[in-house]
Amino acid sequence: MNPVEIIRKKRSGEKLLREEMEFLVNGYVRGTIPDYQMSAFLMAVYFRGMDFEETSRLTEIMLSSGKVVDLSSIPGIKVDKHSTGGVGDKISLILAPLVAACGVPVPMISGRGLGHTGGTLDKLESIPGFRTDLSLDEYRKQMSEIGVVMIGQTDDLVPADRRMYSLRDVTATVESIPLIAASIMSKKLAEGADALVFDVKTGQGAFMEKYDEAVELAKTLVTIGNKFGKHTLSLITDMSQPLGCAVGNWVEVVEAIECLHGRGPSDLVELTCTLAGAMLMLGGRSSTIEHGIDESKNALESGRAYKKFLDLVSRQGGDLKYIENPEQYPYPKNSVDILSSGDGYVESINALEIGLACIELGAGRKKIRDKIDPNAGVVFKKKIGDPIQRGERVATIYADRREGISSAKSRIEGAIRYTASKPLARPLIVSKIEINSANPENVIVHPWGG
Amino acid sequence: MNPVEIIRKKRSGEKLLREEMEFLVNGYVRGTIPDYQMSAFLMAVYFRGMDFEETSRLTEIMLSSGKVVDLSSIPGIKVDKHSTGGVGDKISLILAPLVAACGVPVPMISGRGLGHTGGTLDKLESIPGFRTDLSLDEYRKQMSEIGVVMIGQTDDLVPADRRMYSLRDVTATVESIPLIAASIMSKKLAEGADALVFDVKTGQGAFMEKYDEAVELAKTLVTIGNKFGKHTLSLITDMSQPLGCAVGNWVEVVEAIECLHGRGPSDLVELTCTLAGAMLMLGGRSSTIEHGIDESKNALESGRAYKKFLDLVSRQGGDLKYIENPEQYPYPKNSVDILSSGDGYVESINALEIGLACIELGAGRKKIRDKIDPNAGVVFKKKIGDPIQRGERVATIYADRREGISSAKSRIEGAIRYTASKPLARPLIVSKIEINSANPENVIVHPWGG
Repeated sequence: MNPVEIIRKKRSGEKLLREEMEFLVNGYVRGTIPDYQMSAFLMAVYFRGMDFEETSRLTEIMLSSGKVVDLSSIPGIKVDKHSTGGVGDKISLILAPLVAACGVPVPMISGRGLGHTGGTLDKLESIPGFRTDLSLDEYRKQMSEIGVVMIGQTDDLVPADRRMYSLRDVTATVESIPLIAASIMSKKLAEGADALVFDVKTGQGAFMEKYDEAVELAKTLVTIGNKFGKHTLSLITDMSQPLGCAVGNWVEVVEAIECLHGRGPSDLVELTCTLAGAMLMLGGRSSTIEHGIDESKNALESGRAYKKFLDLVSRQGGDLKYIENPEQYPYPKNSVDILSSGDGYVESINALEIGLACIELGAGRKKIRDKIDPNAGVVFKKKIGDPIQRGERVATIYADRREGISSAKSRIEGAIRYTASKPLARPLIVSKIEINSANPENVIVHPWGG
Repeated sequence: MNPVEIIRKKRSGEKLLREEMEFLVNGYVRGTIPDYQMSAFLMAVYFRGMDFEETSRLTEIMLSSGKVVDLSSIPGIKVDKHSTGGVGDKISLILAPLVAACGVPVPMISGRGLGHTGGTLDKLESIPGFRTDLSLDEYRKQMSEIGVVMIGQTDDLVPADRRMYSLRDVTATVESIPLIAASIMSKKLAEGADALVFDVKTGQGAFMEKYDEAVELAKTLVTIGNKFGKHTLSLITDMSQPLGCAVGNWVEVVEAIECLHGRGPSDLVELTCTLAGAMLMLGGRSSTIEHGIDESKNALESGRAYKKFLDLVSRQGGDLKYIENPEQYPYPKNSVDILSSGDGYVESINALEIGLACIELGAGRKKIRDKIDPNAGVVFKKKIGDPIQRGERVATIYADRREGISSAKSRIEGAIRYTASKPLARPLIVSKIEINSANPENVIVHPWGG
């Protein structure tokens, strides 16, 4: 087979055969297809797209480039959640122990911060001692013993994705729905879950800023998930302001602990419990998402979810002292208040800008080798719709190092808008996307609450 | 500057700044921009294109990557011709000495066979002893002494084009009008000519199969040429059947010699003299193309052009014995006749298929290191519109090696169609494209003969 002909075929908008994609992807992993041919191919895919069948084949080929974890010896339907990435999105930290506490096992493989969005691994690692680099054997063992585990991607899972992702990152070919979908799905299929819930973000702080693109990605994920025999559904949720009040690493862990004590901010609780409800439904624990939401609220308020979180942290080497007494954590060396420049109400908080400001503070990476400051971040006292007076505190910035604080401060100030009249509330959960059980070839978009 | 941002900018359809293109192209030549970023960029250009200004900047940046020959010490307006490549296109062999014989100096840097099309260098090298690898000093010296020289590209001219072209070839990014135009123009601007005539081919056997694409390329070439102060015009000519009767290497040299003796086939003579007419006009030798055509016919018939060809061949080391007595050339080991399968007239001869058949015979290369058989090729006895009887000879195949003959034979048989009624004649020269002298921002397309 001739790689140039395969690139040309995709470039001309034709559909590729399975053998052609295998030849390219497997050749790339083995080193017989060079980077420059793969990057030209990826750019052609960016422009020409792939249909569901091609995306699904690509997913399968990438999946078979590495190991696939077998969790079938662990009883129960294992369910995982994946978010496409947001600002202040600490949900996994609460959700995984919460769902496990309700009896549905959660095998979770997470990522690091990417661009302006935070990463679950970086947040977990702000807990002193917490290990995210378990081997696949340790991963399976912990799953069978406490029903929940949270690790990072290992070298033996989906090597094709790791190589292709690094190449996409440096060739401006990240923003392609079929490539994003195949990358996410190949990793999720490798980790051994039986069912999957996706939280596809839309709005200023999301990778898929436009609602229609978010729906397109969600449809692709749901179609492929179900095609591989995994019961899969997706929510589309708003990421136009940060989720909850804290954005950073340790500050988000603290907010997650608050939430596990039943004291989380309302948007964070609402989305966490809705995702938990969906997972409990897919896990066969509750008959509907609504029942699952009720059960998960109960597990938060009763302290069962918190207890499971302590289990999880101590099993993975984290120091419980800081979970039980977060005030003992080394206090950030610097803190600066952001004061309101307007009277009336908070009109908007641009999540993208907040995410970028946190990178300047040291909460994320500009280059792959940058070290993260676990204390860096921002905590909001006010959210969209809250009344405010000029000069009142809107948020506080935290960081160990001084560098970056002043530019982050002006970026955050510029990201917040005020208005005289109370702004209309924006729904946090926009829609639910699932397979049509009567016709599995079709995907249905339900407006949420409808 | 960040290469990923530049690729993303072009991917999004934005216009690039000069500094951004310099950063990419110069970085690529120096090795700081890797192949995989350049190939993603080239694929983005394939999809998004470039406007005249960007194409012109790219040309200039590529041009400055190497030496530019200065022929200003040689008197007269130096004029070169470039064809976008065809099947049976031996025109340069006749044209260069013909125009030089009429007093206009012709500095010509040619290429090798590419894809299904033949290359002037391969044809010249079928003449025993002929050297196409003169140094730039030898090139300048011969120009000043006999007013004509024909060589291949040297390492010091436009290294950016050589590197980018090799990459395009293996990443399916050849077929992009701005990239083709910048590649052609940077080389033509480097060789030292003062004026340029382009022969942009259209039809089945051309790289720009569609007329509109050929016009687009011709407009780009003419605009850029004039922008760089070179008087430039282009003809669009038909390449739906091979040009002349011979396709190959030595068989084309023989046909060129016949033409220089005033005995060439009518299509070959017509196009050669029209291109010569345009060159003589640009070279200030004749007031109109029509006068130039008359003068060049005269130079063919009087033997002046042939005499200049003998000069050229002997100066570049070619053995004149074979030019003066072509029948002394080693006779091909194999020859096979193609007989007509129809009665009436030849309706069409697919030039692309004939070109591909000649590669199978050994007249062109499948891989870069393939050795060419100078005897391989096909000579037609009939052309489109000629009357024919079933079983009559249409063409003869020649080759030294047997391998490939039978598949080439069936390919050629399949490429020829017959019809009962005489087909309409197709114009060989379709249009002429030149700058609007009243408004140099505009290019005018004149139907030929109109």
